[in-house]
Amino acid sequence: MNTDHTALTDREHAVTTEVLDSFEATPDPRLREVMRSLVRHLHAFARDIRLTQDEWDAGIEFLTRAGHITDSKRQEFILLSDVLGLSVLTVAINEPDAAGATESTVFGPFFVADAPEIPLGGDIAQGAGGVPCHVSGQVRSVTGEPVEGARIEVWEADDDGFYDVQYPDDRTAGRGWLRSGAHGGYRFWSVLPAPYPIPHDGPVGDLLAATARGPMRPAHLHFLVTAPGFRPLITHIFLAGDPYLDRDAVFGVKPGLVVEPAHHTDTAAPDGSHPEGSWAAITFDVVLAPDDRR
Amino acid sequence: MNTDHTALTDREHAVTTEVLDSFEATPDPRLREVMRSLVRHLHAFARDIRLTQDEWDAGIEFLTRAGHITDSKRQEFILLSDVLGLSVLTVAINEPDAAGATESTVFGPFFVADAPEIPLGGDIAQGAGGVPCHVSGQVRSVTGEPVEGARIEVWEADDDGFYDVQYPDDRTAGRGWLRSGAHGGYRFWSVLPAPYPIPHDGPVGDLLAATARGPMRPAHLHFLVTAPGFRPLITHIFLAGDPYLDRDAVFGVKPGLVVEPAHHTDTAAPDGSHPEGSWAAITFDVVLAPDDRR
Ligand SMILES: [Fe+2]
Ligand SMILES: [Fe+2]
Repeated sequence: MNTDHTALTDREHAVTTEVLDSFEATPDPRLREVMRSLVRHLHAFARDIRLTQDEWDAGIEFLTRAGHITDSKRQEFILLSDVLGLSVLTVAINEPDAAGATESTVFGPFFVADAPEIPLGGDIAQGAGGVPCHVSGQVRSVTGEPVEGARIEVWEADDDGFYDVQYPDDRTAGRGWLRSGAHGGYRFWSVLPAPYPIPHDGPVGDLLAATARGPMRPAHLHFLVTAPGFRPLITHIFLAGDPYLDRDAVFGVKPGLVVEPAHHTDTAAPDGSHPEGSWAAITFDVVLAPDDRR
Repeated sequence: MNTDHTALTDREHAVTTEVLDSFEATPDPRLREVMRSLVRHLHAFARDIRLTQDEWDAGIEFLTRAGHITDSKRQEFILLSDVLGLSVLTVAINEPDAAGATESTVFGPFFVADAPEIPLGGDIAQGAGGVPCHVSGQVRSVTGEPVEGARIEVWEADDDGFYDVQYPDDRTAGRGWLRSGAHGGYRFWSVLPAPYPIPHDGPVGDLLAATARGPMRPAHLHFLVTAPGFRPLITHIFLAGDPYLDRDAVFGVKPGLVVEPAHHTDTAAPDGSHPEGSWAAITFDVVLAPDDRR
């Protein structure tokens, strides 16, 4: 019995070299780079942890379950990317490097392409339950010029934590788009959103449970802001004081995206209306980076 | 416009740190180690190649297709692991470190649990087409003691490159098991196997095509050898001169597993029988490692 660990390690590295070489003739140089980097990191992972055959089996089984639960309404591989932080890392890697621009965060799975247009100052809640919330701010460039006519698309969960696509009926609520007006100003009514769990009845939920992590996301409003000459901005507004700000299941929180809602009762709103009972107000300026992709 | 690459890199590393920390409370220390290593390597991959949003989308789409083509007879995630060399690397990582033991290789997807027992010297071909091939050798320990009564299970493709499970009917062919006899000797009849392509009509096949790699495996016989007190051995015999020895789609070839078949015509076989026409003979000794798992 001979324990020659150098020989063992050499054998493992020889496997990696052989696989790297097999991608050498890839015609597309970018695909070659991606595949060779993937092999290098995947093999380093297996070697570092001394992956056992049973663990390899468990990995195959996990991916198989993820594939079988995925359909046109459920995307377990995106959830997996989200809870491993790959989604938000990809956002960070592709973030424009313009100082002062509003930070991006994850897109999430609840965007719908044909949301209704609402007038400046209109209501996107459209029946979504919750405390009325007035949202306003200015869209501007990193050099301070107001951006008029920017398209601002917003979507959010109601105060039960559900998006309209999760309702049993087909109605649209908690989503819409408007354009910024004079001096880049925008304003709309909505409702205060609630924290919600990502879908966790599949393998990703099992992974969260096994690792003592929760499925909750802090309450947020999704923003997609586009304007000619600027990088599209995909981001959220989070609410100060949310109990899940420091444990977002998908790691989307950034300090600059957390706002403090002002709470009011029975006072006139900024637009002169008089909402019944309690209402809230959020101000959030959107600073767009120039469209000069790296 | 300010290009502060240190700040950008710091932001990316902060994401990774946050995700690593999220696994800190995992009760099972091995699962914690595995998940933290996975995150570290996955994030390093994304950062190294500067993963774009479109490439991330393509990765999600690839995994989704792999999940949807996988069923009880087709396992695209195992094929993916195979063509990325992860399967054979896992074999290498778990290889016993006993000097002189027969090397392992990949298990493959064509094993069937209830193959028939055949007598020593019997025929496992059972109707599989091909040139008759007599296979014989000795099972012994790394210290040279013969191992009598070892269970030797063999499975192989026919000379069209198909395993019985790929036949349109349900018959069993090209598989069986026997026990080594006196002095650890074993012998059986079979047919010379042929090279065959791994299933390549799915996303893994598309990946092989895009990277100018082929789906072929060199011809081989699968062996699974077990005996009390020894590590189970999963391996193949490959045939010298096979055109795919240096380009096995799953990287399973090891020089010590390549044998030179002797070709005969109209001569008496080692067991005294007189096969009609051409036949081949292979000798392959099996050296088992002691069962002292690291
Ligand atoms: Fe959301
Ligand atoms: Fe095979």
